[in-house]
Amino acid sequence: MAENRTGDVEAAVREHILLPAQEMAKLGKATQPVLTHAEGIYVFAEGGRRLIDGPAGMWCAQVGYGRKEIVDAIAHQAMVLPYASPWYMATSPAAKLARKIASLTPGDLNRIFFTTGGSTAVDSALRFSEFFNNVLGRPQKKRIIVRYDGYHGSTALTAACTGRTGNWPNFDIHQDRISFLSSPNLRHAGNRSAEQFLDDLVKEFEDQIEALGADTIAAFLAEPILASGGVIIPPKGYHARFKAICERHDILYISDEVVTGFGRCGEWFASEKVFGIVPDIITFAKGVTSGYVPLGGLAISEKVLARISGENAKGSWFTNGYTYSNQPVACAAALANIELMERDGIVDHAREMADYFAAALASLTDLPGVAETRAVGLVGCVQCMLDPTRPDGNDDDKAFTRKIDERCFELGLIVRPLGDLCVISPPLIITRAQIDDMIAIMRQAISEVGAAHGLQMKEQVDV
Amino acid sequence: MAENRTGDVEAAVREHILLPAQEMAKLGKATQPVLTHAEGIYVFAEGGRRLIDGPAGMWCAQVGYGRKEIVDAIAHQAMVLPYASPWYMATSPAAKLARKIASLTPGDLNRIFFTTGGSTAVDSALRFSEFFNNVLGRPQKKRIIVRYDGYHGSTALTAACTGRTGNWPNFDIHQDRISFLSSPNLRHAGNRSAEQFLDDLVKEFEDQIEALGADTIAAFLAEPILASGGVIIPPKGYHARFKAICERHDILYISDEVVTGFGRCGEWFASEKVFGIVPDIITFAKGVTSGYVPLGGLAISEKVLARISGENAKGSWFTNGYTYSNQPVACAAALANIELMERDGIVDHAREMADYFAAALASLTDLPGVAETRAVGLVGCVQCMLDPTRPDGNDDDKAFTRKIDERCFELGLIVRPLGDLCVISPPLIITRAQIDDMIAIMRQAISEVGAAHGLQMKEQVDV
Ligand SMILES: Cc1ncc(COP(=O)(O)O)c(C=O)c1O
Ligand SMILES: Cc1ncc(COP(=O)(O)O)c(C=O)c1O
Repeated sequence: MAENRTGDVEAAVREHILLPAQEMAKLGKATQPVLTHAEGIYVFAEGGRRLIDGPAGMWCAQVGYGRKEIVDAIAHQAMVLPYASPWYMATSPAAKLARKIASLTPGDLNRIFFTTGGSTAVDSALRFSEFFNNVLGRPQKKRIIVRYDGYHGSTALTAACTGRTGNWPNFDIHQDRISFLSSPNLRHAGNRSAEQFLDDLVKEFEDQIEALGADTIAAFLAEPILASGGVIIPPKGYHARFKAICERHDILYISDEVVTGFGRCGEWFASEKVFGIVPDIITFAKGVTSGYVPLGGLAISEKVLARISGENAKGSWFTNGYTYSNQPVACAAALANIELMERDGIVDHAREMADYFAAALASLTDLPGVAETRAVGLVGCVQCMLDPTRPDGNDDDKAFTRKIDERCFELGLIVRPLGDLCVISPPLIITRAQIDDMIAIMRQAISEVGAAHGLQMKEQVDV
Repeated sequence: MAENRTGDVEAAVREHILLPAQEMAKLGKATQPVLTHAEGIYVFAEGGRRLIDGPAGMWCAQVGYGRKEIVDAIAHQAMVLPYASPWYMATSPAAKLARKIASLTPGDLNRIFFTTGGSTAVDSALRFSEFFNNVLGRPQKKRIIVRYDGYHGSTALTAACTGRTGNWPNFDIHQDRISFLSSPNLRHAGNRSAEQFLDDLVKEFEDQIEALGADTIAAFLAEPILASGGVIIPPKGYHARFKAICERHDILYISDEVVTGFGRCGEWFASEKVFGIVPDIITFAKGVTSGYVPLGGLAISEKVLARISGENAKGSWFTNGYTYSNQPVACAAALANIELMERDGIVDHAREMADYFAAALASLTDLPGVAETRAVGLVGCVQCMLDPTRPDGNDDDKAFTRKIDERCFELGLIVRPLGDLCVISPPLIITRAQIDDMIAIMRQAISEVGAAHGLQMKEQVDV
């Protein structure tokens, strides 16, 4: 099979790969478009067609593609020492990376546990909260509170925390120990003001704690912005009020920064600098290596650890761990990625682009079929609906959005189709001119697909 | 912090890393020995001290260290296309690797789902078995049968399948849907013959199915040899008889080949070639990349998939998947690793070394303190006991073994301390002379530590 014969690649995928979110009716029939190479913010498809990578891979390619500094660091480490058992041996890349990440996390979140990606990071964070309460002699304090529209991974436990109900069919998602709260989606506020909506969300949390008993609740697990669930930005003040409630009831606040970390929101981590809280645990993955090598992890508060270590440890062992915890090549990739981001000021650049990016997305709201746009840092979305007064898109809106996605793809932009959203979370190195290119393509695609659906320009409608 | 200042590395580990199996009383106090580089079957510690890597990292470094072919493939892929979303885009390395692995697996296990390591591979295999039965309209067929001394990973679900009871304290391991069978450890046979012992194990399985109801059991999850649980080799014929029972009751047989795969037992996979069965699912990780980059996955039978795809799919989606499913750099590393193994005949070499390796280990049984040795392919162990008539080692035996491990380390051999076992699963490229070196070190270490414990040579005892 020749390297670049995309037909062979497509055939091998069709015949031999079970895909994530595989539609089983299409097994053995459908395949995927093939990417051959990438450079900067661009990826290239069969025939050399260039595409802007709107979602940055899967919200992960922070520094973009073709970064020789990262490649060299990976190659060096793979040559010198590709592996060492994390149970028995230390290596420089893991040690340096842990120290580096500890310097970037807020507060006293200074101890790092490395895993293989976001799912294992969250899975380990939840196993840690279980361990924590068992060691503290509170075996009944085990429930995990999550939200509808939240996404935390694809292991059995993290999938059970997903509030994306579309992921539920044919899996036994429900576990006694996991409880769901409403999505903090302002489009669901109805007639309520943002303040009233927030008060109601807070009250729901308090009521749930009251009903379940605080002494049965181990952790509140939350993304700062609900990414895969629809780029949902909670009302202002949400995080601080939820954090205060957690503190009052000795509930661990686990901030899942798998998407929001490493510059995505214009800061190394979003929890404190963007949303004003210092959580007990932060989970990370994706941007930590810009996707070059699989890696994830969690940072834990020293204060939290102090309660179950040293004098209080009573011979306990945290028997969690992966063959690829502290994997040297992954850690070397992350170190080089972070050094590159520091050297080139990429986090500052993302923060500086944020307003321009938000305004550029917002400029699309004059188009019919655009319900609204949302953005924080360099993650944003365009919500596409045939009837924008609906709070959520229905199947027609999703089909409409899928067509927009397809048209964008033809025009040279990948826009991850996520229900009724075009999601845009580009590599953080994107320039103003490149943002303009993205927006121009989206404008054309939305206009054309809208026109094909008989939508008229808003101005005309307003007349 | 200079690259090679091991003191800095040790300090950073002490201050900033939560280790796998961290002893919480030592948090912030203990650290680990630092490895600086590696070459072939050797790793190098601080001060340039050379050590034979007895456990091949963590049973994973099949082709050994410093393999430029793999490094080049990694660097090439990281430069050309380090990432592509597995939900939307295909890449050549993932497609080629899936086709390649499908050609190496037994029977019709021709469809591959890629994950980030062994835990996520097993977690996804178990989620697949859940999905399978839900789609088939058998929502009650969900139990998983596992064995004491089995090990399947460290996510919440896979940890719940661990039969290593030492991993249980302070975690809520027990789940209703998971049931344990006895370890197939011949040392537990007591007065029974191996045949009688096997009959009893089979009867226990049948009784458990009878008691629980076959219509409540989804899967039997089993390592061909129980690796982390103690290099336990089931009695001859065990696998075939268990497989036949699974077939009779439509129970999926999941063969966890995370350790045994990719040449470790002298074949690409051990299930069929070594143990005579074609399972429904095989999970793999570790050796697939020789540890150079994190990767895991599962191979699923086409016959099994046919029951829930095509006409039978009824709009179902397998909503499992990881950001790093199909990760191009990991897949390129695996492809290069497999090509290297093929080019140099490394699996054949491992098979050819097997008898020599087993005999070399067995030669140690003349030493007092050696209860027995076990080996399949290039995975083996020396069970060290002060009183070898005990079926299992007690705390004294474990302390004795730990001392042997420490002495081996001083003498230039890493021997992973696993309870009362010195585990040896060297890189598959090991030569006869290097096996001799290992055995010589172990002989010296066991003799010295044994003498310090007042053990006398067996000949002298026998007189
Ligand atoms: C917030 C969040 N947490 C966890 C995960 C799971 O990460 P992974 O896919 O690397 O396992 C994701 C993946 O998209 C995520 O968005
Ligand atoms: C048989 C088996 N399955 C699964 C795993 C888990 O693999 P990982 O540590 O890569 O998650 C292991 C790890 O040692 C294993 O030995």
